[in-house]
Order: sequence, then C-alpha cells, then structure tokens
Amino acid sequence: MRILVTGASGFVGCHVVTALLEKGHRVTAVARDPQRASQAPWHGRATFLAADIHAPGCAERLDASHFDAVVHLAWPGLPNYAALTHLDRTLPAECRFLGELVRAGVRQLLVSGTCFEYGLASGCLNESTPSQPVTAYGMAKNTLRGYLEILQKSHPFRLQWARLFYMHGRGQNPGSLLPQLDAALAGGQPVFNLSGGEQLRDYLPVEEVATRLVALLEHPGFDGIVNICSGKPISVRRLVEEHVAAVGGSIRFNFGHYPYPDYEPMAFWGDGTRFYHILNDSLRYSEHPLTGKPCL
Amino acid sequence: MRILVTGASGFVGCHVVTALLEKGHRVTAVARDPQRASQAPWHGRATFLAADIHAPGCAERLDASHFDAVVHLAWPGLPNYAALTHLDRTLPAECRFLGELVRAGVRQLLVSGTCFEYGLASGCLNESTPSQPVTAYGMAKNTLRGYLEILQKSHPFRLQWARLFYMHGRGQNPGSLLPQLDAALAGGQPVFNLSGGEQLRDYLPVEEVATRLVALLEHPGFDGIVNICSGKPISVRRLVEEHVAAVGGSIRFNFGHYPYPDYEPMAFWGDGTRFYHILNDSLRYSEHPLTGKPCL
Repeated sequence: MRILVTGASGFVGCHVVTALLEKGHRVTAVARDPQRASQAPWHGRATFLAADIHAPGCAERLDASHFDAVVHLAWPGLPNYAALTHLDRTLPAECRFLGELVRAGVRQLLVSGTCFEYGLASGCLNESTPSQPVTAYGMAKNTLRGYLEILQKSHPFRLQWARLFYMHGRGQNPGSLLPQLDAALAGGQPVFNLSGGEQLRDYLPVEEVATRLVALLEHPGFDGIVNICSGKPISVRRLVEEHVAAVGGSIRFNFGHYPYPDYEPMAFWGDGTRFYHILNDSLRYSEHPLTGKPCL
Repeated sequence: MRILVTGASGFVGCHVVTALLEKGHRVTAVARDPQRASQAPWHGRATFLAADIHAPGCAERLDASHFDAVVHLAWPGLPNYAALTHLDRTLPAECRFLGELVRAGVRQLLVSGTCFEYGLASGCLNESTPSQPVTAYGMAKNTLRGYLEILQKSHPFRLQWARLFYMHGRGQNPGSLLPQLDAALAGGQPVFNLSGGEQLRDYLPVEEVATRLVALLEHPGFDGIVNICSGKPISVRRLVEEHVAAVGGSIRFNFGHYPYPDYEPMAFWGDGTRFYHILNDSLRYSEHPLTGKPCL
C-alpha cells in the first residue's frame, strides 16, 4: 500500500514507519523538522516530506489522494496533557487538516486516539466504555473523533481510531518514567524518586504498538475504535522493579515521593479483545482488496 | 449589577436582556447586526454594542473587566445541529473569546449549554448524567464547557453553565415547530404535517427560561451545571394539540409525515431539581455580595 504517515519522526511514528517498510509498503513520512527526521531509523528508506500539517492548505500540498491510507500520529504539545492549546489551537487545526485530507479523497484514515479519552473511568476499559475525558488532551482527541465520525456521514471513508495506552521503548520522551529510570541507573544514582507506585496501568512495548497499527491498517474492512493495549494491569512498582531486574541494575526506589496524578484513576487498563477479533478476522483475507498484496 | 450580554438580539437573548432590565440591572447588549438589534424589545433601554465576538481581540474592545458578570448566549449556525462548523470554527472562536474575557478579569460567566450535551441518553436527565453528545453542536458545547472548567483551575472565575432544553415563545425561529404551526393556522391550512408526535420532550416558555437565567446570575455563589427545564415530559402530540386549543384554532394533524430525528432519543426530559435547590438557597441571601442590591 502507498501510505502517508504524519508524526513520522515521533516516538510511535518512527516505529510505525519502520514496521510498514518491513511489510513492504511504500511510505511517505511527514514531519516538521528535517533535522530530526534525518536521525529517524527509517531515514533513507521512506520518502520524507518536511511539512507543518497544521499550516493551512497542507493537505492539498501533500497530494493525499494518491495514498491508499493515511496514518495520522502527529500531535504537538505532549506530554503536557493539561495545556489548553490542545483544545483551542491543536483541535481546530486537526479538524481542518483531516477534513481537507478526507475531502481530497483519502479513503482510509488511521488516527491515534488515547486512553485519556476514558477520563476517570476505573478498571478494565473497553471501547464501549463511555468516554468522559477530564484532560484537555483527552477532550481534544475525543472531540476530534466525534468530528471525524460526523464527517464520515457526508464523506464516506474508513476511520480506524486506535486508542493507545501506555507505551515504552526506544525513542521515548526522556522525561518519561523508564527513560528517567535508565538515566538514573546509568548515572549511578543510589535512589530513584517516584509516586506511590501502587497504581495499575497498561503498558505495551512500542514495537508491539507499531505492529498492531500496521495490522489494523492492512485489515481490509475494520472501521471504528480499538484499544491498543496489553490487556494486563501492572503496577508501576512492578514495572520499574522488573525493568531494573531486566537490565541487571540496582537502585533503591523511594515510593511516595511524588503524589499520584489527579488526571487519571488509580487503576485502569484496556480490554484488548477487540483487537484480537480484528486480527483473527483479517486472517480470513488472503490479500488486500485495494492493493492485491498479501495482508498479514 | 453591570452585565454584558452576548447574543442579545437572539431568541433567548432578547428575553434575558428584558428580564435583567426589569430587575434593575445595567445591561450592555452585544450583537452583530445593528439593524436586528434596533428591533429588539430592549432597544433604547440597554446600552448596545455592535460587535462580532468571534473577531480576534473583541474581548479586549468590550472592556469586559468593568462588568460584574457576562451572560454569553451567542452561538451562530443554529438550528443546524449537524454542521461541522460548530466544531471547526465556532468552538475555537468561543474558546478564544471566553478565554480572553476571563484573562481580562471577568469573575462570573453564565453560558448557555444545551440538552444536546446529553446525546442519546433517555429518560430523566440530571446534571450528573454522563454527557455523550452525538451532534456537532452538542459536542462543541460540551467541549467548550470542559475547556472553561480547565481554565478555572488557572484563572478562578464563577462558571454558571445553564443547559437549556426546548423552549417556545416570542421571537423563536420561524422554522421551529410552534411558529410553523402558527403560520399554518394563520394561513388557514387544513392539514399540518409533522413527525409521529409520540416522542417525549421538555419545554419551557422562553420568558421562564430568561427569569431562571437571571436568578442564576444573581445567586451569589452558584458555580456549576444546571438544567433549565420544566422537569415534565410532554409528547410533541400533546404540545401541538394544547397549543391549537389555547389559541382557539383548528387544524388536522398528519402525524408520521416526517421521520423521528436520529440525533436525539425518543424520550428525554430534564431533572429540574438542582435549579430549585439553587433558587431556595439564594433566597437566604438578602442582597448580592458584589452589588449590595436585593437579589431576588
């Protein structure tokens, strides 16, 4: 398939472009910063386009109708989930950009959603759990999804909305938990401060996230929301302890140094069942109806 | 109180400005169209300012910090609830305008929300019912409320979010049900086409809506969401039959000519309890803490 990927030099984007190339797809990678893109693992293998997708008219310049699908991962301003700019700047720019793509003829759109769409709902969250976001980021993504669902009625296209849970792996923001822990281990720090650590979360390696997004994209018919998650709750305490054991390090954890975040519940994880149903379903198809290429 | 009212020449705005003037408040009425404002019932009694509130910098020009409160009723593009412009144009412009008001020092903001924030929830809806809007209009209002609630954390102000249900009365859009019925009666039409008519809705006279909004505004402490509703479900069939009886007309109803709308449930009405609690509470106060004037 000919695939356009936005946010291609970001954490998830780098892995998705790589995974797409490994499956033989022709990828055009879009990112704002050519310098950063030149350091991406896919550099030299994917076509690179430097563009600010939020600039008016960008969708037209991308000639989006020539692609079989668009994977839209770009989203500025993270990980500050509370910033109002998610709502008053990014959201309208996203509506405009994706609206232009669809009106230009894009037939399949895979967009990264977020577990923050669920808001303060606790426990095992499936795609039918009402979305009640409380963060500006979660609200913006949730409203963008609503916008696209309404747009589908007048301009039919396939919308694959992938709700990403927590991830870890190469290329992650240095301010995230595990990169900070790695830095502390590398620096020989004796103590690592963190929250109480008892909160239950859902983590996937980013490579697995990328593999799943590619599988969704290759599915010839799936349209809708799907959790991209492990389906297995794990405490932050166990996560960091297992990480230290896996890399053979040693450090003392100072649990309770930071308060628990107020923008998410103490315990939530994703129900991953729908993804597996989609995957099983797609195995019934031998080739993609548009490209004629093998699917999975 | 010195009060700024946006959307002052609209259906609800005309009645709210009139009700405020009758209570002795000093009102500055804002609307885009001077011609339309010159025909408003409050013309000559309220200070009029012609302004497009969605134009950048409008909040600054309004000198909003000089008002004790802002009643924000303006919202373009109604009654087309499905238009994507609610989300990609109006919503960001609303965020900007109201954000500017608050940053300019407005301490109290009464904003019209909508029963469409509840989406397809059936039955008696109270303010704690999860908001799951399905229309572009409902999503935009719901997201604007979330935006303002987040803004309150960094810029404390009182947010009075009044969820309006169905209304009828003088100045209503001629395309609405009862004005169309009145036109048919006045034209001597023998038959009036409408939907099945069995759907249950919640209607208030617009004068009562205005009275309630003024009571909210005068309450010295209320902050939050409140339904503005009758609390009594009534079928559209009964509504139109009672209306014809009240005006002494005669017409045959052709129920079932139009389909039921797909953007709202068959039966929903508001729980009006919270408004009455607020009203009872405010009767405990003899005067407004800011103005020193009698409250109710």
